[in-house]
Order: sequence, then C-alpha cells, then structure tokens
Amino acid sequence: MFQIALIGAGRIGKIHAANIAANGRLSLSRVVDPFGGAEELARLYGARVSSIEDVWSDPAISGVVIASATDTHLNYTLESIRADKHVFCEKPLDQDAGRAAQVEQALIGSDRHVLLGFNRRFDPSFASLQRRLKQGEIGELETLHIISHDPAPPPVSYVAVSGGIFKDMAIHDFDMASWLLGEEIESVFASASVLIDPEIGAAGDFDTAKIMLRTASGKLCVISNSRRSGYGYDQRIEAFGSKGLIRAENKLETSVQTWTQNGAMGDCFQNFFLDRYADAYASEVEHFADIIEGKSRPLADERDGVRALILAEAADRSARDGSVVMLRCPD
Amino acid sequence: MFQIALIGAGRIGKIHAANIAANGRLSLSRVVDPFGGAEELARLYGARVSSIEDVWSDPAISGVVIASATDTHLNYTLESIRADKHVFCEKPLDQDAGRAAQVEQALIGSDRHVLLGFNRRFDPSFASLQRRLKQGEIGELETLHIISHDPAPPPVSYVAVSGGIFKDMAIHDFDMASWLLGEEIESVFASASVLIDPEIGAAGDFDTAKIMLRTASGKLCVISNSRRSGYGYDQRIEAFGSKGLIRAENKLETSVQTWTQNGAMGDCFQNFFLDRYADAYASEVEHFADIIEGKSRPLADERDGVRALILAEAADRSARDGSVVMLRCPD
Amino acid sequence: MFQIALIGAGRIGKIHAANIAANGRLSLSRVVDPFGGAEELARLYGARVSSIEDVWSDPAISGVVIASATDTHLNYTLESIRADKHVFCEKPLDQDAGRAAQVEQALIGSDRHVLLGFNRRFDPSFASLQRRLKQGEIGELETLHIISHDPAPPPVSYVAVSGGIFKDMAIHDFDMASWLLGEEIESVFASASVLIDPEIGAAGDFDTAKIMLRTASGKLCVISNSRRSGYGYDQRIEAFGSKGLIRAENKLETSVQTWTQNGAMGDCFQNFFLDRYADAYASEVEHFADIIEGKSRPLADERDGVRALILAEAADRSARDGSVVMLRCPD
Amino acid sequence: MFQIALIGAGRIGKIHAANIAANGRLSLSRVVDPFGGAEELARLYGARVSSIEDVWSDPAISGVVIASATDTHLNYTLESIRADKHVFCEKPLDQDAGRAAQVEQALIGSDRHVLLGFNRRFDPSFASLQRRLKQGEIGELETLHIISHDPAPPPVSYVAVSGGIFKDMAIHDFDMASWLLGEEIESVFASASVLIDPEIGAAGDFDTAKIMLRTASGKLCVISNSRRSGYGYDQRIEAFGSKGLIRAENKLETSVQTWTQNGAMGDCFQNFFLDRYADAYASEVEHFADIIEGKSRPLADERDGVRALILAEAADRSARDGSVVMLRCPD
Repeated sequence: MFQIALIGAGRIGKIHAANIAANGRLSLSRVVDPFGGAEELARLYGARVSSIEDVWSDPAISGVVIASATDTHLNYTLESIRADKHVFCEKPLDQDAGRAAQVEQALIGSDRHVLLGFNRRFDPSFASLQRRLKQGEIGELETLHIISHDPAPPPVSYVAVSGGIFKDMAIHDFDMASWLLGEEIESVFASASVLIDPEIGAAGDFDTAKIMLRTASGKLCVISNSRRSGYGYDQRIEAFGSKGLIRAENKLETSVQTWTQNGAMGDCFQNFFLDRYADAYASEVEHFADIIEGKSRPLADERDGVRALILAEAADRSARDGSVVMLRCPD
Repeated sequence: MFQIALIGAGRIGKIHAANIAANGRLSLSRVVDPFGGAEELARLYGARVSSIEDVWSDPAISGVVIASATDTHLNYTLESIRADKHVFCEKPLDQDAGRAAQVEQALIGSDRHVLLGFNRRFDPSFASLQRRLKQGEIGELETLHIISHDPAPPPVSYVAVSGGIFKDMAIHDFDMASWLLGEEIESVFASASVLIDPEIGAAGDFDTAKIMLRTASGKLCVISNSRRSGYGYDQRIEAFGSKGLIRAENKLETSVQTWTQNGAMGDCFQNFFLDRYADAYASEVEHFADIIEGKSRPLADERDGVRALILAEAADRSARDGSVVMLRCPD
Repeated sequence: MFQIALIGAGRIGKIHAANIAANGRLSLSRVVDPFGGAEELARLYGARVSSIEDVWSDPAISGVVIASATDTHLNYTLESIRADKHVFCEKPLDQDAGRAAQVEQALIGSDRHVLLGFNRRFDPSFASLQRRLKQGEIGELETLHIISHDPAPPPVSYVAVSGGIFKDMAIHDFDMASWLLGEEIESVFASASVLIDPEIGAAGDFDTAKIMLRTASGKLCVISNSRRSGYGYDQRIEAFGSKGLIRAENKLETSVQTWTQNGAMGDCFQNFFLDRYADAYASEVEHFADIIEGKSRPLADERDGVRALILAEAADRSARDGSVVMLRCPD
Repeated sequence: MFQIALIGAGRIGKIHAANIAANGRLSLSRVVDPFGGAEELARLYGARVSSIEDVWSDPAISGVVIASATDTHLNYTLESIRADKHVFCEKPLDQDAGRAAQVEQALIGSDRHVLLGFNRRFDPSFASLQRRLKQGEIGELETLHIISHDPAPPPVSYVAVSGGIFKDMAIHDFDMASWLLGEEIESVFASASVLIDPEIGAAGDFDTAKIMLRTASGKLCVISNSRRSGYGYDQRIEAFGSKGLIRAENKLETSVQTWTQNGAMGDCFQNFFLDRYADAYASEVEHFADIIEGKSRPLADERDGVRALILAEAADRSARDGSVVMLRCPD
C-alpha cells in the first residue's frame, strides 16, 4: 500500500479521499488543511492530520494529492517534487503559463511524476471516444466540436478571482482539444459575450464564449462555453473524421421516459460535475496508483497543464482585442 | 397505364385515389360511391363517376380498389374476380372467417389476384424489420412483441358494429404476427378488459387486450392492444432472435427536442394513422401496379385475410371464456 | 454505527460487504462462510471471521445479511429472527412458498424486520418509474410490460438446481409486477419453450417464457423472460396508464455513438447484473440501515417474498399443463 | 387555379413540377428548358412546352418558378418581375451580392413578390425549432450551432464553377443563421481547410469550414460545413437560450434498430437532400400559392438572398486572409 497525503479537505479533496480509501493499492495516511475539515476526513478514513512540512519530510509518503486553493498549486507541486514525492495536482498548475513552466524545470533529473487533474480524460465516455479515434473507427480526424456549458453561473465573487472563463472553465476544453487533435494548435480565435449576468461583465469577465482552434495541418476545433445552460451540465464532444463521426452525449439521471400527448420526456440531465465525473475521479486515482507503482506515465502532465494555459491566455487575448492569435505551443 | 376503378370515396378511398393518380403506371378512371363523394374525387383526378355494374362490365378496367363499407367487401371482391379484375380490397375481407374463405374458392382457375389491405406490411420500418429478420441479422427468430395502441377510442356507435377489438383492431397485429413468425400458430390466449370506457363494455366489447400466440415450434408472440394511449398512435414491434433484437419504434412529428431543467422533451408522436402509414399506402398502390403488370404476387392475399380472421375469432373466444384456444390455421 | 454480520462471502456477499463498509451508519463486524472467502473479506474491511452461532449469540450485532446458498436462506433467516436480529436476506426466502411462509409466523410479536433482496425495487430507474406512477404522472395504471432477458444462459448444472426459470429468474419480475400493479393478481398464464439450449430442456427447465398476469380489476401484465439475449442484460419496463406511458430503458456502457454509412451505433448495453444494479445494491444497504435505525419498514419483506413464490409456482404449473391458473395471493 | 410556368426541367425542376401538379391551387401550364427534359415533364403533368418569351407575354400565367442554371437566375427573375409575374427562384439569386441587389430595385413600385428558394426554412423540424424559439420556449436566444455536412463531395468540375463552399453550400446556413438570430450580423470569422480532396484545393476552393458569426448584441453563431460526412446528410441545429436548448437532429431512413453484442445500431441517416427536404419542397410550393393568392408575403425574399451572399463573401474573405471581417448587412 502506497501512503498518500491529501492537501485540501474541501469539496474535491473529499472526493479524492474517498477514492484513495477505496483503492486497493493506496492508503490515505495524512490530511493537511489549515482552513479546517482535515480532522473529519482523517477520522473517517483512519488518517492523521498533519502539517505540510511533515508530509514533505516523511519518506514513507509516496504521493501527494494537491486539492488546495489554486494559488497554492504551483508552490506545493514544486516543493513536493523537491521532497521526492509523486504529485497529483488539481488543475490549473497556476494561473500564469510562464510560472507554471517551472514545474517542467523542476522535474528535470527527477524520476517523480506530476499527474495533472484533467479529469475529463478519465471520463468513460470521453476516454472511449479517444480510444475509438485512435483505433481509426472514423478514419482520420478532421474537425472537433466540444460543448461545455455549466448548469448555472458561480457567484460573482468567485468569478472575480477565477482567472476568467478561459482559464477557469475552458481550460478543460483546451486540454481535451489538444489531447484529441493530437497535433499542435497554430491559431486561436475567440468571441465572447456577457449575455447571462451583467455583473460578470462588471467583474471583467465573459459568461458566454465560442473558440476556434486550428492546427498546422488545417484540423479545426470549435469550443462552446456558457456559464449557464438552463438544463444541467452540458458536456458533449463530436469528432468528425474521414469516415464518420464519434459523438459523446450527456448523461441523464435515469433511463426513464414519460410519454404524453406532448411527446416523450426524458429524465433530467445530470446537473452536478461531481456526479457527472464520479467515475472519472475514481479512475484518476487508480491511474495515480499506477504512476506511483511505475506502471504508467501520467496521462496528463505538467506540459499538458502549461499548454492549456497558453491556449487560455491566447483565447482571452483574442476575445478582448478581436484578433486571431497565432501561437506555437511548446512541444 | 392500367385503368383503375375505386369503390368508396371516403377517408381511405381518398388516400388511395391520390396515390393512384400520382402513380406512373395507374390511371384512376372510375369512382363509385352511392353515398356521395364520388363527384369530387372524380373531378379532382379527371375520372368518371360510375356505377359498380359499369365497372364490372368494362373490359378496359384492370383493377378494382375496394374501400367501401366492410359489409360490402366480400361481395364486391367476389364479383370483381368474376368480372376478371385484379382486386385491392381493404381489410377485413369479411367479419366472418368462414364466409371470407369463399374468395379462395373463387380464385381457383383464375389468374387474377386479390391484394388484401394489410398496409403495415408496406410500412418502411416494419418492412425493414421483416427484411432484416429474413436476412438473419439476429439469427433465428424466437419471440415477438407487437404493440398497437390507438390514440383515442372511436365512437361507441362504431365500436358496436366494428366486430370487436380483435377483428377490428388486432386483425392487423395477427397478420403482422403470422407474417413475421413465418410459421403456423398453434394456440391463442387472450386476456381483455374494459379499462377506458364502460360504454365500450356495455356495447359488448373490450378496450384493452393482451394476446399470446404460440407456434408449433414454440416461438411465442405477445400482442398488446389498447383503444387509447394518451400519447399518440403507438405502433411498435420487437423481434427477439438467437443473436439479438430488431426493434421498430414510433415515428415523431419532427426531430426537434427541447432541453430544460426537466429533461429532454421530444416532439409529439404521430397521432393519426393516415399520417403514420402514408408511405405504406403509397407503396401498397405501387405493389398493386406490380401485381396487375404480372411482376409480383400479392404480399398479402385472401389467405392472409382468412388466417387473421381465424386468429381474431380465437382470441375473442379466449378472452370471453378464459380458455386457451388450440387451432390450426389453414395453410 | 450498527454492527453487521455477513453470511456468505461469494460474489454477492462481496458486493454487500463493500457497500456496508462504505456506509456511514453500518460497520461490517463479522464474516461467516464455511466454504472459504471469509478471511479475505474480513481482512479487507477490518471485520472478524466468525461462526454463525457466535453471530446469533452476540448482542452487539444488530443486523444479519444472508448471502449464502439458497437452501440455507430460510433457516438462517428464522434463526436470526429468533436471535433478535434484523435480517437482510437475498431472494428467494426458499424454493417453496409454503415453507417460506414460516417467516411471517416467526415475526409475529417481534419488532425485528426482514428485508428481502428484491434489488430491482432500489434501481434508480425502476424506483423513479414507480414514484412517477404513484404521483399519477400517467393517470391510472392499466397495463404493464416487463422485459427481463439475461445476456447468456447459466451452466446447465446450475439450471438443474435453480428451481427453474420461474423461481430463479422471473421471481424478480413477479415482485416488480406485484409492486407496480399495486393490487392482487388473480390469474396467471405462462407459455414457455426451449429455444436456446436443448440441454436446458433435458434438465426439465425452459429457457424462454412469456407470462400474463391479470388483477381483480382487470389490469394486465406481460412478463418476457429469456436466458439469452445476444446483446446484454435486457431489463426494461413499460407502464401504460390512462394518460400516457412511463418507460425505463436499458443502460449503456457509455454515451458514445459512432455514425457511419450504416447508421448510428450506440455503445454496448451493460452486460453484467452486478454493474447494472450496482446503484441498487448500495441503496438497498442504505435502506437496511434505515430499517435498523427504525426509520423505515422494509420496502420488500417476507410477504413479498412469499407472494412472488406463489406466482412463480403458478406460472410453472401453467407452462407445464397449458392451463390458466387462478389464484389469490395472501394479503 | 393559378397557372405556373416552370423554367428548368432538371433534378430540382422535376421536384417542383410534381409539387405544383399535386397542389390544389396551382396548375403547371408551361415548362421551359432549352437543354431538354421539358417535353417529358410537360407530358407527365399535362403542361405545354414553351419559350421563356411566351411565358412572359402570357397574362394568364401568374407565377414563374426558376430552376434553371445559376447564371440565369438574376436575369430571369428581373424579366419575370417586369412581366408582372410572381417569382419563386432557386438560390442563389446570383453569385454576386452587388448584382443581386438589383432585384430589390426592380420590385420598387411592384406588387409582385420574389420567393427565394431557401428551402430549409420550410423543413418541418427547422420550422418547428424557429417557432419554438419565437414562442420563448427557451427564453432569449443566446447562441446557435448549425451543422451542415454533405454526404459526399460533388465532382471537382462542379466545385470549380460553384462559387465556392461559402456561396454554394454555406449560403443556406447563412440564411438559417440570419433567420434564427433575428438580428444583424456584425462580424464574420471563417477558418477553412482542404482535408478531403486536394483537387478541391487545386480548384481554388475549400472542402471543410467552420464559421463564427457575431451580432451587435453579442449573440454568437457557429456554422460547420464539410463536403463529406461519411454517414449521410448531416443537417442539425442547436439553439441555446437563457432557459434551455432546442435541438433539431438528423432524419433516419426508418425507426428500426438492431441490438447486438456491439450495441444498438440505428438505421442509416438520410443521404440525399431531395429526400431530406421532400416535405420542405412541398411546403415551399404551398407557400408560393399563398403568395400568389395574396395571403402571405415571402418567408424568404430577395433581401434574404442578398444578405446571405454578403455573409458568404465575408466568410470567403476571412478564410482566405485570416482576418475577422466586420460588416453591416443591409436592413
């Protein structure tokens, strides 16, 4: 059993704690959270409350799961690498692509790995879509549509410190696009609006955006983002290839339909991201166990984190000044 | 162009008239209806109003389409055969299986054909299901589910003279069952209730029924009938085979869905049998042209009509006395 | 935390153990299994291996979960009641309805409860269907279609001791029918065949069956059973009411579709009952905690178990002698 | 009955001829086609073969349907207006937005109307989507996704004279976007590639494109075009509003599904635009009868034709020079 320390006992920390506890190869040994919640989690799973320094200095600990506030991600990741731990860090590494690139530097000469929390790569539907693409089920991929709309906007107070719709929300979609396109993105164009809540605009952000990505070979990707759907969590992908299409649709609460004179009514769409991605979070922790055991390299790593940040920064620039932003992602 | 006479200018007669007029091989030359409506149809399609006797005596007429009242079907069919015409007769041939069997006798030594109006065999979905079954897409057929529910019950005055739910409504399903099972049905069990309208019960009929058919080799078929669905015209079939299932679902008005917090709402189900089976009626007339031209034998003929009547009579008996009725359909 | 003893460390016992361990109110304290497997389960969840007698004599244990061989269910249930434990017993209580009725006797004067493992009542889709029915979403229920086909037949050696298709497989459907119809079933007709494997016939059983149930008020229910579907685990229900239909469809592995010139291909149907009903098993254990805590009475109890057995025995009789079996279930 | 002259007896001319003949208010009296085919059509529907000049000089003719080669559309439309006929002209009015604007001039002071053949507005699904939007079913429209992919590319010889993917193919989508957005489009960005056939590139055209439109109020629309789908004719729209989504999906050949161990396979997608839009073409002719009768103004007219051309020209410019094109459509 590999001993794991969890930093951050909030909403997502609790999910990871449960998955670590249920995992046959991992044992939750420490919980760190200066803002509270550590005791409860530690008690529930038989772990110890600890300081972050004790985690780093304890050689028995193999891996650190970082689920604390975004502005601590980078520092905790760098320190954990220095302490010779494997890291599973929630996205984003940092809100600044330049700073985040330090992680790559820190890993030079190390045999530790950083798994970046791009949970959607672990979603059974999206993972199946990617596998089918790779297997050539629809020939050569040509274009991609990614829809990622939230059920309802977060509080404006959160929006103000979130880094903006592109870094906070579209970051996942930039990662999915990079992962599925399988080649370097060359240009970014984004058009964004404030259609949902003028206060989001007053906070300097957008609530609605469409983004167009183009690769060197001319593959095209459209991303659609909205802070509010009105019908639940809308997470869909369509991949168009030379021989057909692969499509991942939304998940419903149940398979029940009601038929009346108005037509057939399906059940509600899943509304909450922790439900929608419950399976993905469990697979992600399983994958972290593989990494610690030396059986896998991270499916998403620090370079993926930096790449997504660069795309987010480009989209933000495009949306603000109306230009098409040309770029070369680091390879 | 083969000249066709239409007997009956009512609702279904109008459908057949339009399809005959639009058919490249058929010409609507006569319309017969002593109860009115013939003039309007004749004018619309450039035909002549005529008596039934003139139809029989005119050698230029190749085919007679019988869409008049049920109690005239048998006599008009027999006389038309005697007059050496091909016949396309709406179902049922008669309300009595024994009497209907006269048509088989009348055809002995004749090279004319009787196409019986089992329109569902011509429905693109059901026809595709049958073709796929024949091609072995799901291996060997084992069991069959047929759902046939009307949107709303007919007037009780109609129910009283309809011949009852089994002869009036399930007759189509008995034909589909025989066609798809492809072997002789050996026993019939039906359970029927009055759940929709007590006046239907007072008229001596049922409004809800489930029927179980069994063939000699042990294939099983369940038919579900209801005089009222609450959501439209419910016409579905599921065929279970040794390697899978083939399923024909209902048709919707359009492909539009509305997604709200309550879930995804599809468009209304088609409600009216003339819409649901519009394509089938056109194919049926095309098939009648093939028969007249000598290119096809009837896909549904007088023997299918008699077989369906025998099953309907057995189901009615079973529902009334609670017994399982053993039978051997004529081959 | 209520202490729970698990009897039976096989396939289904493991599922229950994991759900008990993950439950915030229950603690797995004992595992009993003379045939092995107890040690491994006990170690995994920090429980003790124990004899059944020690379970009964330990007043600290509140509930017993019986997941052992079918022929031990009745005795273990009766003894556990005598030992003043709450019981969660896998179906069936026994293979004989008469003997199973002893449990009702044993509970007279006791404040303990028996939760019978009719897991489908806890399935989110079927539970939603039942709730919608109760809430009158489609008016008054009139008829019911239950489809329950296994992916592939069990070994013939199992079939021979299974109690037959009606007691082994349809028993769940009889319970669903009783639960959803909400009134006493008055007559049973079943037609059954050997279409899949002649060895199943040689073992005295059927592999394919259709069953028709009728209630006193004339509500009708059709159950379809097959030991092999060819496409996965087929678990569907359609409830027809006075104002519409409620339908629970199958679950798919993922929401991915592939579109090619042949059409749109969905992902595989779930194939394994432990996957299909994973949520149901977890809810069932949650419900058992409610029962122990005194917050709920069993959603399915010993009387439901006896009722389902009576229906299974009637169906078996009907299928064997071709008769319609009249009955009155105990209230 | 209004007398109609048809100019052009090719593929689409035949469709219009059949719909005119079947229409209770219209009579096909003349067919004009110097390139042949007029005789056959005229014979089939009892019309006369005629010169275009005879059509213009015959006061008995109320309406002219222009289904001839694209480079004749503008001239025939202008002359027909001068001859005081109502015009139903296939899209596009011309390949040049500036020239097409002459039609607006020509109609000043006339009480004749020009119906432009944007057939998709008459499609039952898209028309229903538009009606639901107008009725506020999903609140205020915010963004729009239009997918329009052809089954297979046309011959390169056609591509070379087609006006390019934006004028030839996306023109329909520009019209749908304008119609559904309901406000002026302010900027156009298009990214286009040659991914299907290098010969299309050699002919100076693209075969794959994504287009982003933005209105003055910040509503966004994405259009996806491809000359080849691999799975049929892909014609879908999603409209995202403040309270939900309205979605029009593709049409399938039948409602049949086959379930096997690989999953559920639907029937093929409709492949041919004349099948896909058969209902739309019939409604369009019905609407032309309304216009002639004075009961309706054109649902799509010359100004819609010019607007779509302006958008197509902007998209082409954007795709070629990589810029975002700002514009103001004429009102």
